[in-house]
Amino acid sequence: MKVLVINCGSSSLKYQVLDMTNEELLCKGLVERIGMDGSVITHEKVGAEGKFKLETPMSNHKDAIGHVLNAITDAGHGVVTSMDEIGAVGHRVVHAGEKFASSVLITDEVKAALTECIDLAPLHNPPNLLGIDACEALMPDTKMVAVFDTAFHQTMPSESYIYAIPYEYYEKYGVRRYGFHGTSHRYVSERAAEMLGKKYDELKIITCHLGNGASITAIKNGKSIDTSMGFTPLEGLVMGTRSGDLDPAIVSFLEEKEGLPQGGANNILNKKSGVLGISGVSSDFRDLMEAANGGNKRAKLALDVYVHRVKHYIGAYVAELNGVDAVVFTAGLGENSKEMRELICTDMDYLGIKIDPAKNAVRGKEAVISPDGAAVNVLLIPTNEELTIARDTFEIVSAL
Amino acid sequence: MKVLVINCGSSSLKYQVLDMTNEELLCKGLVERIGMDGSVITHEKVGAEGKFKLETPMSNHKDAIGHVLNAITDAGHGVVTSMDEIGAVGHRVVHAGEKFASSVLITDEVKAALTECIDLAPLHNPPNLLGIDACEALMPDTKMVAVFDTAFHQTMPSESYIYAIPYEYYEKYGVRRYGFHGTSHRYVSERAAEMLGKKYDELKIITCHLGNGASITAIKNGKSIDTSMGFTPLEGLVMGTRSGDLDPAIVSFLEEKEGLPQGGANNILNKKSGVLGISGVSSDFRDLMEAANGGNKRAKLALDVYVHRVKHYIGAYVAELNGVDAVVFTAGLGENSKEMRELICTDMDYLGIKIDPAKNAVRGKEAVISPDGAAVNVLLIPTNEELTIARDTFEIVSAL
Repeated sequence: MKVLVINCGSSSLKYQVLDMTNEELLCKGLVERIGMDGSVITHEKVGAEGKFKLETPMSNHKDAIGHVLNAITDAGHGVVTSMDEIGAVGHRVVHAGEKFASSVLITDEVKAALTECIDLAPLHNPPNLLGIDACEALMPDTKMVAVFDTAFHQTMPSESYIYAIPYEYYEKYGVRRYGFHGTSHRYVSERAAEMLGKKYDELKIITCHLGNGASITAIKNGKSIDTSMGFTPLEGLVMGTRSGDLDPAIVSFLEEKEGLPQGGANNILNKKSGVLGISGVSSDFRDLMEAANGGNKRAKLALDVYVHRVKHYIGAYVAELNGVDAVVFTAGLGENSKEMRELICTDMDYLGIKIDPAKNAVRGKEAVISPDGAAVNVLLIPTNEELTIARDTFEIVSAL
Repeated sequence: MKVLVINCGSSSLKYQVLDMTNEELLCKGLVERIGMDGSVITHEKVGAEGKFKLETPMSNHKDAIGHVLNAITDAGHGVVTSMDEIGAVGHRVVHAGEKFASSVLITDEVKAALTECIDLAPLHNPPNLLGIDACEALMPDTKMVAVFDTAFHQTMPSESYIYAIPYEYYEKYGVRRYGFHGTSHRYVSERAAEMLGKKYDELKIITCHLGNGASITAIKNGKSIDTSMGFTPLEGLVMGTRSGDLDPAIVSFLEEKEGLPQGGANNILNKKSGVLGISGVSSDFRDLMEAANGGNKRAKLALDVYVHRVKHYIGAYVAELNGVDAVVFTAGLGENSKEMRELICTDMDYLGIKIDPAKNAVRGKEAVISPDGAAVNVLLIPTNEELTIARDTFEIVSAL
């Protein structure tokens, strides 16, 4: 069965087609500027030379999906002769609230449930739903599956997900820790168990998803027991432009001092904070490292604060797990920056965490980077959320 | 030298007189309802029977201090024959911003600096300054010293105190982690070194100040390197009525949903949250434990969340310290609840932290409660902020 994977944002859309008989990636692409001037689709067929790129008006997500289907079925750069060959579509959906703890076949009831979660993810769930609607309109007979960023973390115990605020806010509004990047944390933790030849449900694993968004998860016997992102993706680690953890009193202090409207701090904390906010240089770690190496003190400070927060969480999760068998680095920074992995793992030997500089001199591919015989295995595992979405989709649709 | 210690709140005031030749407590007392109906002073002379209590109008802090001086010099329940015997006054001051990293003789410049910090501690610094002014008016020739809650934490490195928000907010408004309870963390960590017969500046210590307000500090070689309270005392651990850590996005979400004015969430997060908010029962842990033992699930949940957060921070600080020689429990809950100490130290053996249930069956007095030969010493040390204030005051005034 071939599976189309769709990850739909408000004005962009990423897709892949995978052949699930051998989990082979056939093609992938990106649509940008949906509903704006200069809409463009960029499509890449695996094994073919070059990329196909088409600038054409796309006024909405249905237009965009239409061009995705054209690209997939194109005689030249396509990967199927007709859409009948696509056995199922897997949709990434950010927020399922407490409604779904695993991936699910999309029905009207599921869509209604996700619509109810819009309050919790006002920026993410509406475009995810638009993508589902567009696919349904164009492929009415194809089974579709929703794979949720929050689902993996639904195993958290209540002491991890309840905030110390009046309990009625949890009951009335669903204010609790949900956690995100669940598909990534699940993928790399499962893969870590395979790489180590150990049973997934007998391991204590800490997964560090360090991308532009960043989160860290404690996984005990295959279940997420705590994660750093919370009610929204703002909490936890320092990110490219997000603050992560903050004294909550700072929110209204800043709004008052800066004369911002109510809620006005949110934009600053999400878009102008993180390493960009500290450094004033960039949200890109390559820029930061270059600036820091060139003597920029605030760039150096941004990196120091970033590393400090990751170490803080690793320690916290070692305590919550009462041990750790493996620490996994993934996503942009985690996969590509040996410097950051080394800084994070420096002076962590009391916890049993060490890396071997020679083994750590690697980027973007699976590797065990701790010394032979180390108490804790430290791994680099490129994440693959699309493959996980395709697997869940294939499994659910195959079982129908 | 006899030292008067003053801890001045907005409508209340605590005091002690200590004889610093032998650090003996001579008397202590409390003034309540200053500037309100029913002002009352309660005075207790050590070694004497009963307490002296006087209800009399006190319209301001100067009136209150006047009655304190009367009580101290009273022929019956007093401890000095005249105020000339009081060699110095030590004032607790909550917030010194970045201006003072240690206790300091009070001068006009110091008072001006503390006035500048009012923005950072609008609830605490004004009454602290009122207390200083009142004492100066009544004891114009007596030397006075300010001892700051924030001072001990001024040794934190920038990666611990800088938030990942635009750097200009640190420069313009001083938004950073300050930390509080510094006098307590300092006292119990110094005492821990003494009890263990080790050098203070060669130890890694984690101090858990678990009172109605609660904070936890990582101390390396005698210096605070991180602490859980932040820009204000709201951040960090779960407290009696304070939320501690929270996704910052929750602040404006709640204000919007509840129709609160801008900044309106602050009161809820400070006064109606914490274990009170979760449980709906009480901010008092004795009530919570009774309710939890009686089957109240939300009371149980409040305790679980509380314990979870403490364990989280202990682990985080073990990572930041890359080890730990001693964990110290202090303040109301830390000193008096063997149950909470046991819950916090359960399943922490990977970090080397264990307690001996028999040794832990103690309250309110100094004890090592870890098993003999344990990797990490766990201690119970009643805090004594007044003694620390008196010591600093004595030392500074003696050296003039």
